Amino acid sequence: MSADNPIVDGQRNTRRAFYDDISQKNLTPLWEVLASLVTPVPRSPLRPWLWRYADIGPDVLRAGQLISAEEAERRVLILENPALRGQSCITQTLYAGLQLVMPGEVARAHRHTQSALRLVVDGEGAYTAVDGERRTMRRGDFILTPRWTWHDHGNLGDQPVIWLDGLDIPLVRTLDASFAEHGQIESQIETRSEGDSLHRFGRNMVPVDYSSAATDAAPLFVYPYADTRTSLTAMASAAPDSHLGYKLRFINPTTGLSPMPTMGAYAQLLPAGMQTAGYQSTDSTIYLCLEGEGTAEIGGEEFPFSRNDIFVVPSWALLRLHARRETVLFSYSDRPVQQVLGLWRELRSN
Amino acid sequence: MSADNPIVDGQRNTRRAFYDDISQKNLTPLWEVLASLVTPVPRSPLRPWLWRYADIGPDVLRAGQLISAEEAERRVLILENPALRGQSCITQTLYAGLQLVMPGEVARAHRHTQSALRLVVDGEGAYTAVDGERRTMRRGDFILTPRWTWHDHGNLGDQPVIWLDGLDIPLVRTLDASFAEHGQIESQIETRSEGDSLHRFGRNMVPVDYSSAATDAAPLFVYPYADTRTSLTAMASAAPDSHLGYKLRFINPTTGLSPMPTMGAYAQLLPAGMQTAGYQSTDSTIYLCLEGEGTAEIGGEEFPFSRNDIFVVPSWALLRLHARRETVLFSYSDRPVQQVLGLWRELRSN
Amino acid sequence: MSADNPIVDGQRNTRRAFYDDISQKNLTPLWEVLASLVTPVPRSPLRPWLWRYADIGPDVLRAGQLISAEEAERRVLILENPALRGQSCITQTLYAGLQLVMPGEVARAHRHTQSALRLVVDGEGAYTAVDGERRTMRRGDFILTPRWTWHDHGNLGDQPVIWLDGLDIPLVRTLDASFAEHGQIESQIETRSEGDSLHRFGRNMVPVDYSSAATDAAPLFVYPYADTRTSLTAMASAAPDSHLGYKLRFINPTTGLSPMPTMGAYAQLLPAGMQTAGYQSTDSTIYLCLEGEGTAEIGGEEFPFSRNDIFVVPSWALLRLHARRETVLFSYSDRPVQQVLGLWRELRSN
Amino acid sequence: MSADNPIVDGQRNTRRAFYDDISQKNLTPLWEVLASLVTPVPRSPLRPWLWRYADIGPDVLRAGQLISAEEAERRVLILENPALRGQSCITQTLYAGLQLVMPGEVARAHRHTQSALRLVVDGEGAYTAVDGERRTMRRGDFILTPRWTWHDHGNLGDQPVIWLDGLDIPLVRTLDASFAEHGQIESQIETRSEGDSLHRFGRNMVPVDYSSAATDAAPLFVYPYADTRTSLTAMASAAPDSHLGYKLRFINPTTGLSPMPTMGAYAQLLPAGMQTAGYQSTDSTIYLCLEGEGTAEIGGEEFPFSRNDIFVVPSWALLRLHARRETVLFSYSDRPVQQVLGLWRELRSN
Repeated sequence: MSADNPIVDGQRNTRRAFYDDISQKNLTPLWEVLASLVTPVPRSPLRPWLWRYADIGPDVLRAGQLISAEEAERRVLILENPALRGQSCITQTLYAGLQLVMPGEVARAHRHTQSALRLVVDGEGAYTAVDGERRTMRRGDFILTPRWTWHDHGNLGDQPVIWLDGLDIPLVRTLDASFAEHGQIESQIETRSEGDSLHRFGRNMVPVDYSSAATDAAPLFVYPYADTRTSLTAMASAAPDSHLGYKLRFINPTTGLSPMPTMGAYAQLLPAGMQTAGYQSTDSTIYLCLEGEGTAEIGGEEFPFSRNDIFVVPSWALLRLHARRETVLFSYSDRPVQQVLGLWRELRSN
Repeated sequence: MSADNPIVDGQRNTRRAFYDDISQKNLTPLWEVLASLVTPVPRSPLRPWLWRYADIGPDVLRAGQLISAEEAERRVLILENPALRGQSCITQTLYAGLQLVMPGEVARAHRHTQSALRLVVDGEGAYTAVDGERRTMRRGDFILTPRWTWHDHGNLGDQPVIWLDGLDIPLVRTLDASFAEHGQIESQIETRSEGDSLHRFGRNMVPVDYSSAATDAAPLFVYPYADTRTSLTAMASAAPDSHLGYKLRFINPTTGLSPMPTMGAYAQLLPAGMQTAGYQSTDSTIYLCLEGEGTAEIGGEEFPFSRNDIFVVPSWALLRLHARRETVLFSYSDRPVQQVLGLWRELRSN
Repeated sequence: MSADNPIVDGQRNTRRAFYDDISQKNLTPLWEVLASLVTPVPRSPLRPWLWRYADIGPDVLRAGQLISAEEAERRVLILENPALRGQSCITQTLYAGLQLVMPGEVARAHRHTQSALRLVVDGEGAYTAVDGERRTMRRGDFILTPRWTWHDHGNLGDQPVIWLDGLDIPLVRTLDASFAEHGQIESQIETRSEGDSLHRFGRNMVPVDYSSAATDAAPLFVYPYADTRTSLTAMASAAPDSHLGYKLRFINPTTGLSPMPTMGAYAQLLPAGMQTAGYQSTDSTIYLCLEGEGTAEIGGEEFPFSRNDIFVVPSWALLRLHARRETVLFSYSDRPVQQVLGLWRELRSN
Repeated sequence: MSADNPIVDGQRNTRRAFYDDISQKNLTPLWEVLASLVTPVPRSPLRPWLWRYADIGPDVLRAGQLISAEEAERRVLILENPALRGQSCITQTLYAGLQLVMPGEVARAHRHTQSALRLVVDGEGAYTAVDGERRTMRRGDFILTPRWTWHDHGNLGDQPVIWLDGLDIPLVRTLDASFAEHGQIESQIETRSEGDSLHRFGRNMVPVDYSSAATDAAPLFVYPYADTRTSLTAMASAAPDSHLGYKLRFINPTTGLSPMPTMGAYAQLLPAGMQTAGYQSTDSTIYLCLEGEGTAEIGGEEFPFSRNDIFVVPSWALLRLHARRETVLFSYSDRPVQQVLGLWRELRSN
C-alpha cells in the first residue's frame, strides 16, 4: 500500500491496465468494490431529514396559483431526500409528496401499477374515489389506492385540501414494472355508496362468497382516524412499549397482511413526556406528526417536530423519540417487502 | 339375480360362506358396500329438524332447578339430531346446546381442544372470559373460545341467561384428538380490561409486533351484534343475492380465515317477503333465528320459524328460505374444514 | 350416589323423568355425558390390530375366483378394525383394503371426491392410470389418485397383483361430501407418456407456467420405491432418531404439503436390532411392512410382524417398534387433517 | 407552449423561480417528472447486451495472475450493464459475475444477507460448501447459497474452475438491508456428507419433523444438471411452447416457491431450428448458454450466442430466440419478487 514500493507500484499499474482493458468489455473487478457492496451493516446513502409544515405548507398553496390541477394531472410537491436530489424519492424505494386540491377541482381518473396511500393533513371537503366508491377524506384517515385500481380525487368544499401522498414509485422503477392508463372520463361514476367497503369488509366480516385469492387488491381502502384514535387511546391504559410506545399496523383484514404489498403503514401514540429507547430497523421510514410535538433523534441528529411535520429515518439509523405532549405519529415504509423477502431486521437498545 | 336359479343360488351361498370365513379375520368384501360408501351425491343420514324456542326454552329453565352449575360443570341441554340420537350431535361433525347460567352462578374455568362459539338468545348480565379478558354477552353477539384457551362464564345480573353453544365435539371425537384440563381456580383473574381484544384487533389494525404465525388461536373473540347489524343494514341498500339474501361470514382479521378452523359462522339478512331460490351445499348447517320469522323449506319439508328457533339443514338438502318479516339468521357449519380439504361444494338452482 | 338415600333417589327419579320428557323433543342433558365427550386425553374406540399377510393373502386370491373385476368394480377385501365392524373402516377416518387385479383384467375408470393411495405388495405387471398417464406399479411404489381425478387400473402381466388401497372414505362420509362419476369408457386414453409427471414435477422443477394455486390435485402421483429406498439408505449413515428411526414423509413438491390433504404418507427405516422409544400421536396410523420383520408393541400388546403384514395403531396408544432385521415400514394417517385444524399432538417418552 | 408568447414566457419564468425557491427546501414539482415516473409501459434504462465467453474467459483467467483468492476474498469479474456502468449490476436488481478458483485455492467462509446462485461454466474439481455440506460442482449444476448461510468454496482439482455468480446485491442495496460476517475459519468443517441435502429433500420427501415455516432458507441447495437435462429431454417428446420451448423453473420442494425469494432460476430447451415467437416480461433476465448456439433478438437487436455466452434482456424488451442447434439456456431474474408484490406481467405475441 506504500507509494514508495516499486513492486506495489508495478502491481498497481498492472492491475490498473487490466481494469482499463476489461472495462471496454463491460467488466469490472469485484474485489475493488466488494466491501462497499456487501457491508456488515446497512450503510444507507439517505440523509435523515425533516420538513416543517410551517415552512412548506405555504409553498404547496403557492403551487395552486402556478398550475391548474388539470394541467398538472396531480398537483404535488415531492419531498426529496437531500442525499438523493433529482430522483423523486424520499427513500430509495418510496416517494412522498404533498398534494393540493383546490375547491371545485378534480384530479382526473387514472390507474397505475404503483400503489398509493393518502393522509389528509389540512382542509376539509375532498374525496378520493376508488373502484366506484367515493370516500370523504378527513384529517388522519388512512386511505389507499391499491395498484391498478381506478382512482380520482376532488374537492367539493370551500377550502384548499392538502394531503400526503405516499407511493412506491422508486421501487417500481427499480423493478422496471410501471404500467399506467388514463381514464376515459374525468371522474368515476359512483357505483357503490360511500362506506360500502367499510360495511362489507371493515367489521371483521366479509361477504360470504368473497375470496382474497381471487384478487390482489385489498377490498378495504379507508381506515378512519376516529377508529385508529379510539384504539390507541384504549391501549394507552396499559404500559407502553419502551421502544415504540403504542404502535399499530394497518392490515388488510381479508389476509392479515399489509393493505399494500409494497408499503406498510403504522399509527403510534406516545404519551406526554415519553422518551423512547433506541431503535433501529432496516426499513427506512417516513413519519408524519398527526398530533402533539416533540423531538426525533435520528442517527445522533435532533429534529424537533410538531403537527403536520414530516421526517424520514434512514435504514439502521438509531431512532429515539421524545414526545413533549401526547403525540400521534403516522408512518410508512417498505417493511412488507423486506419481510416477504426475509431481509427485514430490527434492533432494540437503550 | 333370480332366487330360482340354482347357479346363482350356489354362487350366493359360496360367497356367503366366504364372507363368513373372512369375517373371522376382520375382513369384509368392498363390492357389497361400495355403492353406499362412494355415492354419486351426498346421502346424509341426518334429518332436517327444527327446535321451537317456545317449546324448549322452558325445559332449559327447568334444568336450572334440577342441577346446579357447579354439579353440571356446564348446564346445557344438547340438541340431538333425531337421526343420530345418543351421539350428542346435531350434525355428524357438530354439536349444539342451550346453556343456562342463573344469576350469581359461574361455570368454572377449563380448556379443551374442542372449539366453541356462543350466541346469547335470552337474558342479560352474563359474561364469558377468555384468556384473562371478560366480555359482557349481549344478545346476538358472536363470541368464541378458540381451542385450548382458558375460558369461564358467569352471570352478574339478576335474570337467567341462555345461550347457544356450538362446538366441534363430534369432529374432534372422530379424529380422536380430545384433550382437556380443569383450571385451578373457578374464574380467571382479569388481566386485560373488557374490550382489549377489540381495541387491538377489531379495527383493521394489529399491534405492530403481532404475528398470526406464532399462534393458532384467533386473537379476536367477540363480534358485537351491533356491528353485524350495522353492516347487514347497510348492505341491504343494494339488491340481495337471490339464493342467500345478504350474507356475511365472520373472519379472523389477522388471517382472513374462519375465526376457528373447524367451524364457520355466518350472519344473514333476508328482507321482508324474500323467498330465496334453491341452494345446496355439502356443509350441514345449524341456523338460529335472531330476528324475524318465516319458513325454511329443507329437502321438501317445511319448517316455520320465529325468534330464537334453531334448525338444522343436512348436507346437500335443498334449502329455500321464506322471510315473512325482515329476518336475521345466524348459522354455523364445518365449511372451513371442507374447504381446506378441497371437499366443499355448493349448487344454486331455482 | 347411594342407592339407599331417599333424597338422592328422589332427585335421580326427578331427573330421569325430566330426561325422558325432553328426549321427546330431541334434547338430552350434557352433564350426563360431558366426561365422555371432552376427555383429558384421547380415548380411542379403536383396537390395535395386525393382519398377517400369510393369513389373508390367500383370501384375497380366493376373491379372484368368486367375483370378476367387472362385477365388483373394485375387487377389494376391506380390513375392518375389530372395534368398528360393519363400518368399512380401519380407523375412524380411514379405510384400508387389499385389491386384487388378475392378469388381463381392468378396473374401470371412475372418479370420486375420496382420495386414494396404492402400494403394491405382491405381483408385477399392473398399472394405474391417472388423468391420462399410465404408471407401471412396482412393489413399494407410493402411488396416489388425488380426489376427483379420473383413474383406472389394469394388469398387463401374467400373475395376480395385490395392492394396498388407502382411502379417506370414513372421513368423507362423516363430512357428508361424497360425489362420484363413472367414466364413459373402461380405460382412459393415454394422453401423456409414462413418466411424464415425474419428468415435469419430480425433480425439484416445475413447468414455468405451473401454478399450484390453480389446481388442488397434486400433479405428481408416483413416488418410486427405488428413490425412497435410496434416501433411507443414505440417511442411515447418520444416527437414527430414537423414537422414529429414519422417517420421511411424502410431499407434493409444488407446495411442500401432503400429496393429499386428507392423508399423510410416510416411509421409515429401522436398522436391524433397533428398539424405538415410546411414541404417541393423535393420528391413528396404518402400517405396512415392506421389508424386514420385528414386533410392534401397541398400547401394551405385542404384535409380531413380517413382510406385507399390516397393523393399525390407535390414537394416543403407546407405540414401540422392535426391528429384528433391517425393516422398512410404509404408513399413512389423517395427520395432515389434524395439523391443518391445529389438533395434532405427539408425545415422546421412553 | 410557444417560445414567442410573453404570457407563456412569464409563466415559465415564474414557475422556474418557484422551482428554484422550493428546491432549497428539498421540494420539487411532480408535474415536471410525472410522465417519466409513471410510464404507460416499462421504459427500462438497461441496454440489452451479450458477453461472448470467447472474449471474456481469458480475462477471467488473467485475473488469476493479478490477484490471489485470499486477497480478493472472491476473485470475480463483474458483468456490468453498459447503461449502468459503475453500479456493479447487470440489471437494476441483479448482479452477475464470473468467479475463478485456481487449483488448491479456497474462497474463505462468510455469510451475508445477499442470496447467491452458482453455475459452473468451465473446469472440474471445485466445491461449494453450505452449512456444513460440501458439494462437488459440475458444469450446469444449479447451486445456491441462501441468504445468511455460511458458505465457502475451494478447488481440489488440477485445473482452473470458472463459474457464474448471480446475486441480488443491487436489490439488497436498494432496500438498504446488507449484513455480512466473516467466518472464524477459512473453510467450514464438514458436518454432513456430500449429497445429504439431496437425500433428505431432493426426492419429493422430507424428514418427518421438517417444517418449512421454521426456517426461511431452502434446505436443498443443489440441482444436478444431469437431472435437469433428463427432464428437458423427456419433455421434448411433446410439442414445445411456441414462446418458450421447454422451460422449467427450479423450486424449493418444501414450499413450491423459488429456492431464493429474490431470484428465480430457469432451465430451457430449444429444439434445433426453433424460432420462438415474441415474448415480453417485466423481469429483466440474465441468460447463460449451456448447450448449443443461436441468436437472441432483443428489442430489435440481434445477438448471436454460443456455449457459455451470457446475455441480458431488459424488462419488456421483445425477445425472440433462434436456436441453430439444440440449445439449453439457464436464466435468472427477479421474477419471484415481482410476483409476490403483484407487479409481474408477461405478454406473448408473434
